[in-house]
Amino acid sequence: MKDKVVVGLLGAGTVGGGVIKVLEKNAADIAQKAGIEIVIAKVLGLDIEAMQKEFGDKYIYTKSFADIVDDPEIDVVVELIGREHPAKEFIQEALEKGKNVVTANKDVIAKFGKELFPIAAKHGVDLMFEASVCGGIPIIEPLRNVMSGNKIKSIMGIVNGTTNYMLSKMSDEHLDYDAVLKEAQEKGYAESDPTADVGGLDAARKMAILSSLAFNMNIDLDDVYVEGIESVDAVDIKYAQDLGYAVKLLGIAKYTDSFGASARVTPAMLPIDHPLATVNGVYNAVFVKGDAIGEAMFLGLGAGRFPTASSVVGDIMSIARNIKAGATGRLGMCSYREKRLCPPEAMTSPTYIRMRVVDKPGALAAIAAAFAAQSVSLRNVIQKDNKGNTDIVVITHSVSRANLQMAIQILEVLPVVDRICCVISVEDRSLE
Amino acid sequence: MKDKVVVGLLGAGTVGGGVIKVLEKNAADIAQKAGIEIVIAKVLGLDIEAMQKEFGDKYIYTKSFADIVDDPEIDVVVELIGREHPAKEFIQEALEKGKNVVTANKDVIAKFGKELFPIAAKHGVDLMFEASVCGGIPIIEPLRNVMSGNKIKSIMGIVNGTTNYMLSKMSDEHLDYDAVLKEAQEKGYAESDPTADVGGLDAARKMAILSSLAFNMNIDLDDVYVEGIESVDAVDIKYAQDLGYAVKLLGIAKYTDSFGASARVTPAMLPIDHPLATVNGVYNAVFVKGDAIGEAMFLGLGAGRFPTASSVVGDIMSIARNIKAGATGRLGMCSYREKRLCPPEAMTSPTYIRMRVVDKPGALAAIAAAFAAQSVSLRNVIQKDNKGNTDIVVITHSVSRANLQMAIQILEVLPVVDRICCVISVEDRSLE
Repeated sequence: MKDKVVVGLLGAGTVGGGVIKVLEKNAADIAQKAGIEIVIAKVLGLDIEAMQKEFGDKYIYTKSFADIVDDPEIDVVVELIGREHPAKEFIQEALEKGKNVVTANKDVIAKFGKELFPIAAKHGVDLMFEASVCGGIPIIEPLRNVMSGNKIKSIMGIVNGTTNYMLSKMSDEHLDYDAVLKEAQEKGYAESDPTADVGGLDAARKMAILSSLAFNMNIDLDDVYVEGIESVDAVDIKYAQDLGYAVKLLGIAKYTDSFGASARVTPAMLPIDHPLATVNGVYNAVFVKGDAIGEAMFLGLGAGRFPTASSVVGDIMSIARNIKAGATGRLGMCSYREKRLCPPEAMTSPTYIRMRVVDKPGALAAIAAAFAAQSVSLRNVIQKDNKGNTDIVVITHSVSRANLQMAIQILEVLPVVDRICCVISVEDRSLE
Repeated sequence: MKDKVVVGLLGAGTVGGGVIKVLEKNAADIAQKAGIEIVIAKVLGLDIEAMQKEFGDKYIYTKSFADIVDDPEIDVVVELIGREHPAKEFIQEALEKGKNVVTANKDVIAKFGKELFPIAAKHGVDLMFEASVCGGIPIIEPLRNVMSGNKIKSIMGIVNGTTNYMLSKMSDEHLDYDAVLKEAQEKGYAESDPTADVGGLDAARKMAILSSLAFNMNIDLDDVYVEGIESVDAVDIKYAQDLGYAVKLLGIAKYTDSFGASARVTPAMLPIDHPLATVNGVYNAVFVKGDAIGEAMFLGLGAGRFPTASSVVGDIMSIARNIKAGATGRLGMCSYREKRLCPPEAMTSPTYIRMRVVDKPGALAAIAAAFAAQSVSLRNVIQKDNKGNTDIVVITHSVSRANLQMAIQILEVLPVVDRICCVISVEDRSLE
């Protein structure tokens, strides 16, 4: 009978340092709750002196992964170095050598999960990844456990803190995109190259993981349709507010028996009474619909040292309980369904379109005719002066992506249309 | 190696029937996700003919608990008959005979959990109870697993759907308590005897369970201080709105190293930008603060056939995975801390007080002096005409329950005070 569970930590930066501090501070309670003591033995990092200074002499510091993966005392390898390589190779080697693995690495899980989970299963070890999606929010484990009796119908998530902070600022203070981005960068909420956040890639990785879990099939990153928030203007947010909506960058994954699965990241308008609509600032939230549970939402801090460490430590404790019970590998990834993706023409939603028009008689008639020609019917139409120019804003009834693209192509070449400024999906609750 | 997990179901009413339907409808997926087939063998109920009619000939129906608990084929006993007795005795006997147990029974877990969990541990079986708190919302499992590395500092919950529906109605439509209660009864959201809901007892049971789990000690139902919503008037909700607050019936559990644990159920004013403040209607939500996770909130449907069945089936699947891995009893209740309850004088919060006064010069001065005499300082004061009478409304700065009671006793005998109409705790986020 083992008397303790031994951890080898890869990376002692923001999250790794947080994990060390949580395991130290709450050591006695963690041992009680896990039923067994959990200790870090070795820490991998590049600057051994700096680690020694920050974390003291309790741990063995090393620059060599072999020191950790070949140590027979180590039960759990915790990968917190980030990015794809060599993180993926480290995780793979650890699993192949019979180590349980915890990772916070969404890049690796989104891209290489389908390779890695079968390796974990083959070796009867755990590969846990709660922290890879939305930092501190418990969402992976509830999907795999409490909610696993459900057929999940949809997941909608605010899964990127940077863009949610920016859109909240734009909404509350009516500021422009550029001004808000600059402020977010100054405050450290956005990176100097913000592309992965504002362009939706970061959210897409999380949606690949969540949709794979929810629908029990391998949804690849390339399967996620991605649009960012770059084209969203303060005026669009204002129109949305006037119409009773909030604008959010949403990850949306849906499954229907008829069409299969779809996953996308897109700026979207949500009715202001939707639980996700009031999730502001740096909060993240994931809203799940299942055939039994109905609706459930998980809200919390999607990033940060200690929230992310909370999820990592939770995973380590789950593995510790499995080790104590002789039950590692108890919970698999379960991608048992063959991948079947919803064809684009079957992905439908009402859509908000704002266009700059030439202000002359017949403009609206020409535009309305163009929509009608593509069988796109309109729910709302607003014509308004926007700083000396004329904007026409429409919200369509539910329309397929294919028909919408056709309509937009026709609108773009109409003489009365100067340009299409902004296209935003409308996620009405009743139509999900 | 077992090829299936066999369930004996106690009770085939609203929730029991839901469990049957979910296990039937999603059988293939559930077998894939749990890694083993799950089948119901026997169902206990009083009206065998009615059950046969509703659920068909697939199951053996019985009126005898012995038929189930003494059946060696049955691995999991699912208790859904409700109330304290004989549910508690059935659960106890099942555990003692080596059966795993799933229950949705908050009465039993809140009152007898401290007896039952050690029995489960002794026999190496699981006793799962996700559905006992807030129906479909995954909160028990996340507290025991993902968040278990945290020291939980507080839990605030909207854990009673009836009162949340009523207070939401009173807020949105400015209706009186009596009118709203009548409507809730007509719609089936409130029982004909609504005492357990509006008086806070139902919420108190859930808070006893949640606080026991969160603080790892046995908090008994009697340890939970309970106030209901009976004294909350539409005018109080209006004042709260004017001051930027929403009124909710909150379960509040807190733990500090200095004072220990406290748990109470009380009408409370929340700042409108608090995530719980926008949880309306029949939604429930639980807001958790931990030393690592920061803040997290879990929202969903707190009752109903299928949401509750979702949690029950999730528990059955967890047990099935444990059975397959030979790891039942893997997760204990973990009440390892000695009970230490916060003394009432150390429980503090700002407090809203509305009193009916005699409208004559000096009334406000006399009232202000009475507060000052008890060292209770005031944050807001409003004097207003309320349908021909004069109301004085104050919000105090943070005040201990003891000092507050003293101040109220003095106010009650002041000649200028007609009566104290309403006292509501104010839960400012910054002061939690």
